[in-house]
Amino acid sequence: MDYSKGSSVFTVPKTAPIRVGFVGLNATKGWAIKTHYPAILQLSSQFQITALYSPEIETSIATIQRLKLGNATAFPTLKSFASSATVDMIVVTIQVSSHYEVLMSLLKYSRSNPNFKYLFVEWALACSLDQAESIYKAAAERGLQTIISLQGRKSPYILRAKELISQGYIGDINSIEIAGNGGWYGYERPAKSPKYIYEMGNGVDLVSTTFGHTIDILQYMTSSYFSRIHAMVFNNIPEQELIDEYGNRLGQRVPKTVPDHLLFQGTLLNGNVPVSCSFKGGKPTKKFTKNLVIDIHGTKGDLKLEGDAGFAEISNLVLYYSGMSENDFPSANGQQPRVGSGYDAGKEIMEVYHLRSYNAVIGNIHRLYQSISDFHYNTKKISALPSQFVMQGFDFEGFPTFMDALILHRLIESVYRSNMMGSTLNVSNISHCSL
Amino acid sequence: MDYSKGSSVFTVPKTAPIRVGFVGLNATKGWAIKTHYPAILQLSSQFQITALYSPEIETSIATIQRLKLGNATAFPTLKSFASSATVDMIVVTIQVSSHYEVLMSLLKYSRSNPNFKYLFVEWALACSLDQAESIYKAAAERGLQTIISLQGRKSPYILRAKELISQGYIGDINSIEIAGNGGWYGYERPAKSPKYIYEMGNGVDLVSTTFGHTIDILQYMTSSYFSRIHAMVFNNIPEQELIDEYGNRLGQRVPKTVPDHLLFQGTLLNGNVPVSCSFKGGKPTKKFTKNLVIDIHGTKGDLKLEGDAGFAEISNLVLYYSGMSENDFPSANGQQPRVGSGYDAGKEIMEVYHLRSYNAVIGNIHRLYQSISDFHYNTKKISALPSQFVMQGFDFEGFPTFMDALILHRLIESVYRSNMMGSTLNVSNISHCSL
Repeated sequence: MDYSKGSSVFTVPKTAPIRVGFVGLNATKGWAIKTHYPAILQLSSQFQITALYSPEIETSIATIQRLKLGNATAFPTLKSFASSATVDMIVVTIQVSSHYEVLMSLLKYSRSNPNFKYLFVEWALACSLDQAESIYKAAAERGLQTIISLQGRKSPYILRAKELISQGYIGDINSIEIAGNGGWYGYERPAKSPKYIYEMGNGVDLVSTTFGHTIDILQYMTSSYFSRIHAMVFNNIPEQELIDEYGNRLGQRVPKTVPDHLLFQGTLLNGNVPVSCSFKGGKPTKKFTKNLVIDIHGTKGDLKLEGDAGFAEISNLVLYYSGMSENDFPSANGQQPRVGSGYDAGKEIMEVYHLRSYNAVIGNIHRLYQSISDFHYNTKKISALPSQFVMQGFDFEGFPTFMDALILHRLIESVYRSNMMGSTLNVSNISHCSL
Repeated sequence: MDYSKGSSVFTVPKTAPIRVGFVGLNATKGWAIKTHYPAILQLSSQFQITALYSPEIETSIATIQRLKLGNATAFPTLKSFASSATVDMIVVTIQVSSHYEVLMSLLKYSRSNPNFKYLFVEWALACSLDQAESIYKAAAERGLQTIISLQGRKSPYILRAKELISQGYIGDINSIEIAGNGGWYGYERPAKSPKYIYEMGNGVDLVSTTFGHTIDILQYMTSSYFSRIHAMVFNNIPEQELIDEYGNRLGQRVPKTVPDHLLFQGTLLNGNVPVSCSFKGGKPTKKFTKNLVIDIHGTKGDLKLEGDAGFAEISNLVLYYSGMSENDFPSANGQQPRVGSGYDAGKEIMEVYHLRSYNAVIGNIHRLYQSISDFHYNTKKISALPSQFVMQGFDFEGFPTFMDALILHRLIESVYRSNMMGSTLNVSNISHCSL
């Protein structure tokens, strides 16, 4: 597999780095400083931060000083930021609820920046399917190469599982079970936790985040979208107890409108495979199972992915594989598999894949930046590399785009619609690229 | 808990045993000789086999000789069997597809047997809800005490789990996941396996048997029926490969019309608890999980039940419990719980409950007979014990009846209807006793 050779981006001769402008990088708090920034630091020949925008310019100036971003400018307005020709790539890592407004403005103002080529936005892209469609359209009209942070696709565990599946090591998949635990949405809420993640419609909840990332990963691993789905969405905990940082209850109850449980079941387009999912909120109380368990059963073997947190895209996982060793030699290029030959033929084999000190929070984002760099510099020497690509789909190479995000938004919208209507929905068309 | 004291039936002074007539006991094959017969053997003061019926009387005669049933008569016709006054209890352990015809005849002919009091029928009672209703009605009109072999309710693991739940040891249940494996319905079929279990409509399939028993057990443990359900039923393996007793393929493919997968999700009436179920066919290939896993999560603790086979009612299980020791002292009789007091208060506690040499196949049926005996002799000295009871519902004491079977049939019918209609169904009324 080519993908497992990894990126050879580090061997790229010194060229002009991709100049990055951030909306949302703050040296002292937030997601970008914990993930995007360390990811970029490790790719300093390929990416250079040249611009920052924040509603308060003092924040950007402080961040530039603190991080010693010698080549970066703090812009006073979104307009000046977006239209500056010093930026090749814009990364947006603010609250999802602000995405639509900021992105639509960015896309408008950026028309006067001839160098603007890459737009990298954090999942969930937008708070609704409608907004996501508008953003997708505007970015497509602008001719941009888009990137969405569905970074679970870059997890080494997910790629190894995808490889085992695609090479036939578990035969035909015949059933899948997923159980995940999204810690935030339970009985207690840390008093310091931002309110918006407990309010419906802000694009960060058990369905969009926990389910969204995980089901995207599942589809990616199995190389299949869904054909039919059914969902039940629960808000069984309409009020939460505030707790302090030591877990003590503060005697105050606050409303919660986001879901705390999702039941989802459906069939994969490929093979009509039954898939059963249960995503729960609440602090992990699952003593006898991990907070994320993905079981993929096939006619010739099984895969199990386990994680300590219910968020597959930011968790260090363990991948278990079991099958028969006759599968060691899958047929390829029309050759007959060497079934039954060899010392261990027909014996049961097992693989446990775990990178003990892998930091998945940074690592998966880092690998996403690597992929962008691979694309930009054509590190992998792909002949006739397109100047832009619409979607990753289920390719090993590349990176997820706004189209991949849009397809996932359609699935999420179907989840809510199925719950509202109490119906099984046919979703076999949602992966079509057309709007 | 009274139930855990077990039956004191063995101390009952010698009285007249319950005289049992069997339809379906064969010394050389079938279910009854492996389960009902050894179960009764251990209760020889309470039950005595006095009558056998089989379409071929030679079978009954041979069984009487082989088992040395000195008090038993082989009857030549169902009519003579049913009308014989030497029988207090009739046990029917034939193929479910014959239940309706045999039971309706039995109930008609038995009018001339004044001693006929107990009718014990193997699950699934009948092949359809309609048939089950007719049988229920006829038995009710006849004034019989009915018993159905939903024997999982008698499993010591299920009763211990039910006890832990009912005493508040896991707090309020907030989510449940079940994954089961029904071995028969996969890619391969033993050539000696009877054809009828692979043909739709015979009352023994993944939905009626594997799901039926397991979901009955779940409802019983949690003391709750379902309010809303949704199901998807699959027959992804319409043809099976015949194999010999060594697992070698015989090169012959045979049709299968029964399901090989069931996805089921819904909410419990009590607490709107989300329940996720996946039942698959096929020989166990689940290397990283047991063939039966029931996870019950609560606000204060967790329960996990695991079994090697996907049939909870006949599997020896392992029960895991974890919670906080403050729950050691649940409030009872209006007393305040002694929360926070005592040496181990607030510490995490765990219990693993497993009877290493428990034979669940016989044991659960044996305990069902014990319950019948407890009822008949009023072993437990219950004042004002009714002469008959309509249903067990969720009581610790007693035994499941045709009404319990009927309620389960309604759920199973809803499963197929939900699958056909592609709809979430409201099933909150199906536990009402009226027809």
